Amino acid sequence: MNLKIGVIKGDGIGPEIVTEAMKVLDKVAKRYGHNIEYRQLLMGGASIDVHGVPLTDETVAEAKSCDAVLMGSIGGNTSTSPWYKLEPSKRPEAGLLRIRKELNLFANLRPAILYDELKGACPLKEEITEGGFDLMIMRELTGGLYFGERKTEEVDGVMTAFDSLTYNENEIRRIAKRAFDIAMKRRKKVTSVDKANVLDSSRLWRKVVEEVAKDYPEVTLEHMLVDNSAMQLVKDPKQFDVILTENMFGDILSDEASMITGSIGMLASASLNETKFGLYEPSGGSAPDIAGQGIANPIATILSAAMMLRFSFDLDKEADAIEASVAKVLKDGYRTIDIMSEGKTQIGTARMGDEIAANI
Amino acid sequence: MNLKIGVIKGDGIGPEIVTEAMKVLDKVAKRYGHNIEYRQLLMGGASIDVHGVPLTDETVAEAKSCDAVLMGSIGGNTSTSPWYKLEPSKRPEAGLLRIRKELNLFANLRPAILYDELKGACPLKEEITEGGFDLMIMRELTGGLYFGERKTEEVDGVMTAFDSLTYNENEIRRIAKRAFDIAMKRRKKVTSVDKANVLDSSRLWRKVVEEVAKDYPEVTLEHMLVDNSAMQLVKDPKQFDVILTENMFGDILSDEASMITGSIGMLASASLNETKFGLYEPSGGSAPDIAGQGIANPIATILSAAMMLRFSFDLDKEADAIEASVAKVLKDGYRTIDIMSEGKTQIGTARMGDEIAANI
Ligand SMILES: CC(C)[C@H](C(=O)O)[C@@H](O)C(=O)O
Ligand SMILES: CC(C)[C@H](C(=O)O)[C@@H](O)C(=O)O
Repeated sequence: MNLKIGVIKGDGIGPEIVTEAMKVLDKVAKRYGHNIEYRQLLMGGASIDVHGVPLTDETVAEAKSCDAVLMGSIGGNTSTSPWYKLEPSKRPEAGLLRIRKELNLFANLRPAILYDELKGACPLKEEITEGGFDLMIMRELTGGLYFGERKTEEVDGVMTAFDSLTYNENEIRRIAKRAFDIAMKRRKKVTSVDKANVLDSSRLWRKVVEEVAKDYPEVTLEHMLVDNSAMQLVKDPKQFDVILTENMFGDILSDEASMITGSIGMLASASLNETKFGLYEPSGGSAPDIAGQGIANPIATILSAAMMLRFSFDLDKEADAIEASVAKVLKDGYRTIDIMSEGKTQIGTARMGDEIAANI
Repeated sequence: MNLKIGVIKGDGIGPEIVTEAMKVLDKVAKRYGHNIEYRQLLMGGASIDVHGVPLTDETVAEAKSCDAVLMGSIGGNTSTSPWYKLEPSKRPEAGLLRIRKELNLFANLRPAILYDELKGACPLKEEITEGGFDLMIMRELTGGLYFGERKTEEVDGVMTAFDSLTYNENEIRRIAKRAFDIAMKRRKKVTSVDKANVLDSSRLWRKVVEEVAKDYPEVTLEHMLVDNSAMQLVKDPKQFDVILTENMFGDILSDEASMITGSIGMLASASLNETKFGLYEPSGGSAPDIAGQGIANPIATILSAAMMLRFSFDLDKEADAIEASVAKVLKDGYRTIDIMSEGKTQIGTARMGDEIAANI
């Protein structure tokens, strides 16, 4: 098979971790007889440095011509990096938001899994996490506060800022369907998170989600307020299967969910549109403080590449092979510093990539 | 001293827990020679049942005539209670939102404290919470998404919902000042939480907070994105002293923060305006599932009454007496069911009130 993959190395640890994911993909290609064509795409700070903007029209077109995009991470230190002296629409993150919108990547999937081998790093007590947990956040990614109109202006001499939060029934329906589809392949439960006791957008959200639920009689639907959800994630993460929510709530809850696993360096994510196309990236950030040191954990990016093979190319066997290799490497006791614990073997970014590639 | 206190018993466990707080207040009045005049105010479901609306103009006027208001909790089971068949503006929570606005209660203080005696109930591992933590959330309570214009209407045949998020510099400045004032009496650190990489309101927030900070050279100011904050609360709550944030982010983060203490039944809160007036309530909800059983934990409400004595009446000695009594009762091993653990004495709501009153 011919795979045309766009590669956004991005900023901070991005280039290091993406290099390892490509190493693993190359091994998969060799072993299973595929042909990969990579297209390097500049985005974020890396694009600002070259083009003065975080994403060019050419890069958008180039990304659209690919079958899928693998991304590292975007952004730098907001206090010290010169990128953050630019106006908001020119900063690194604006590139990420624009590509989500341009490619219509409305469905963001972020799994939060407690790996048995890494329980030690989980901040929650063992009585709460016993038996592990495995939840999937389905976050709407191209609507809501992120893409509403905004402005800052003087009103009667007082500086005033406005943001707006809009959702229409079609936007809600398509993401809800995705959540129920995924739930059907999992434990058949959807928890839809909103703030329906305050927001009109949440009340419409709830109504449309209930309509969609009728087409999935086997799936249990539950509604939960966002404030309660932030509590329940800490109190009893095992109660969740698929969490369906809008863009801003999803941003907050998916980060909370990844932190309660204790090993964010292990968590992949996918941003999908209506077709097979997707952008795949690790859940963690660009970690500028450790960039260039060769110590970042590449596993989340490698698992994102596995997600890409599965979702965008239907290469399940190949994705399984990557995931099995990651499991074996952990079992063999190899750890990057972020997941290191007593008695294990600490290795760097490149060596972790080597070990995972070697098993494939 | 004459204290004129409005009392909103509210819904669910509200009446039970407020009764115990009044028991303790009465003992304080007797012991320290004060005279308390209570005004019972109907709000939420309790008001709907009598007046058909969650808050009447008369009740607002009555509340304004008091020196302070003590509240239980508002709202019922959203799936089964008939209150939730009403249109949104007639539901119990609408009363709470309206009273916050009418009384201009813009500053919501929610402490999250890990009580040494109750560490066992904390969901976080001991290595994270060792030595305890004590943070204060300062949440803006009368602006943002909660009070913006909203509507739901067809746009080109598609049902569309709009909410809006507005802050002006004055609203931000007054809440920021409160946060810095409180920080001066604590560990002199303010973490201002926003989403400045996306929202205009957050960028204005950050700018105004930085201006206010100049008047408090002793206080360390740090900015943190809301998604990162949701992670850091779980990863390392000890890093925080005062968390300053807008209404919706504060709703989410303060619930998360109270849950990581493991004993939400212990957490008081205050909602203040520019004067000494305040509304005091427990952080937990109305818990309709256990209402009327005499098992709810009244301590958060009793500690809210202590906060009231301190903030609204400057009765520090009396507030200290309540807090000391709560500490003693815990030390003596008395527990309601929500904070029960092996070897302790489980008691009900009324008995807990009796024990705390007895020590004063
Ligand atoms: C970088 C930022 C704009 C982005 C977001 O808020 O969506 C990030 O936090 C994420 O979750 O992918
Ligand atoms: C009941 C609800 C409207 C309220 C809020 O969201 O402010 C509650 O969650 C709170 O935090 O006091």
